[in-house]
Amino acid sequence: MTRTPASAAQPARKTVAFVLYPGITLLDLVGPLTVFTSLTRFGLGFEVAVVGAHTGTMSTDTPLSVSADRTYAEVPAPYLLCVPGGEEPTLRALADATLLDYVRTASAAATWTTSVCTGSLILGEAGLLAGRRATTHWMFRDRLTAFGAVPVAERWVEDGDVITAAGVSAGIDMALHVVDLIAGDTVAKAIQTGIEYDPQPPHGPIDWAATDLAACAPMTEAMLTTALADHPALLAKLR
Amino acid sequence: MTRTPASAAQPARKTVAFVLYPGITLLDLVGPLTVFTSLTRFGLGFEVAVVGAHTGTMSTDTPLSVSADRTYAEVPAPYLLCVPGGEEPTLRALADATLLDYVRTASAAATWTTSVCTGSLILGEAGLLAGRRATTHWMFRDRLTAFGAVPVAERWVEDGDVITAAGVSAGIDMALHVVDLIAGDTVAKAIQTGIEYDPQPPHGPIDWAATDLAACAPMTEAMLTTALADHPALLAKLR
Repeated sequence: MTRTPASAAQPARKTVAFVLYPGITLLDLVGPLTVFTSLTRFGLGFEVAVVGAHTGTMSTDTPLSVSADRTYAEVPAPYLLCVPGGEEPTLRALADATLLDYVRTASAAATWTTSVCTGSLILGEAGLLAGRRATTHWMFRDRLTAFGAVPVAERWVEDGDVITAAGVSAGIDMALHVVDLIAGDTVAKAIQTGIEYDPQPPHGPIDWAATDLAACAPMTEAMLTTALADHPALLAKLR
Repeated sequence: MTRTPASAAQPARKTVAFVLYPGITLLDLVGPLTVFTSLTRFGLGFEVAVVGAHTGTMSTDTPLSVSADRTYAEVPAPYLLCVPGGEEPTLRALADATLLDYVRTASAAATWTTSVCTGSLILGEAGLLAGRRATTHWMFRDRLTAFGAVPVAERWVEDGDVITAAGVSAGIDMALHVVDLIAGDTVAKAIQTGIEYDPQPPHGPIDWAATDLAACAPMTEAMLTTALADHPALLAKLR
């Protein structure tokens, strides 16, 4: 029988855990994953994990398939939890009891719980947004009320220990804000420079006033109807 | 023996091909991949492929491992080629003759050749940047002269049919610009809204004047020395 001397004990690592499930919008994950992977290089005790029900290959919204590096059971108590979103696959994930259980228990253990895009619907279904201000992709923003949340049209929304980001690319901004909170602005700015995040969209910022969001409402409705055909209670809740 | 009637012939697809190799900076790939995957939904005949030496799992700069969906041989003549970059692994890829051969022949067949971050070094080593204005991650910008290119400090640089982007996140802006060119600004703006690319870095744009780029020169040097230890001619060329 071997004994481990106290001095050999590993220092506590702060694990930033991203939840992977089939069909996610890959950029929802890879934006903040890149920011937090950069954070692990600063010697502050952070590590990053991509956590799934299994570590086999999973599809994404692109031709690229990906694999998690750890299972839910291996990361029961992350420091920070981040749930990416997507389209129909994310809506279907709202009926995945194992995923919801993991999100609920990991969030309870975590210092911060975050989401990108429609990942906030998963936080909502896990019961984590009741009474909170929150955001999501603009196509689903008004649906947050189904979970007792107060929808907010901001790039990211911090309410207590829960931080939700708007659609897809908003995860990069949210992650840099979180780095501000947990490691300070010098580190956040160094990461921004490292990933050369100096955005210049060719047509400038989105011109929301010129964008007919209501025209997309039937698309949102169709996605819900298709994705939740086998889950009438969820569908009724979100319609 | 079956005969295919002329009417059953598939219309020509325009393939947007991303080159995957081990250890890439994943966001270099996933930013433009997301933009072009959105483009495939507009019924304009575009398709997206992630092309590698094999379709098995490859590492990235994050804990996420990924798989290409096609091999080089399966996509000999893409419409558009995009080469993502990275750190040491991309420098090592400069010595990968099979990769360079694919980039060279696919580019010759392509209407557009693009890169993100240090992916432009691969274009350079393939002989595609001689005499051209080009950019890359700011840490390696001055090294572009090793390939006869003219380094330019812009978010993306278009010179003839070659478009190079600056570091990592610049691939999103470059891809939206390319969509402008090949599908028009209405489509480009719709994709921008779809991925909610309305950037709000918490500390604003990068303050280049306050950033000590020269302090990173030893890091660039160390990366080159480590990555190209077994390739002295390449190392001498890039130092």
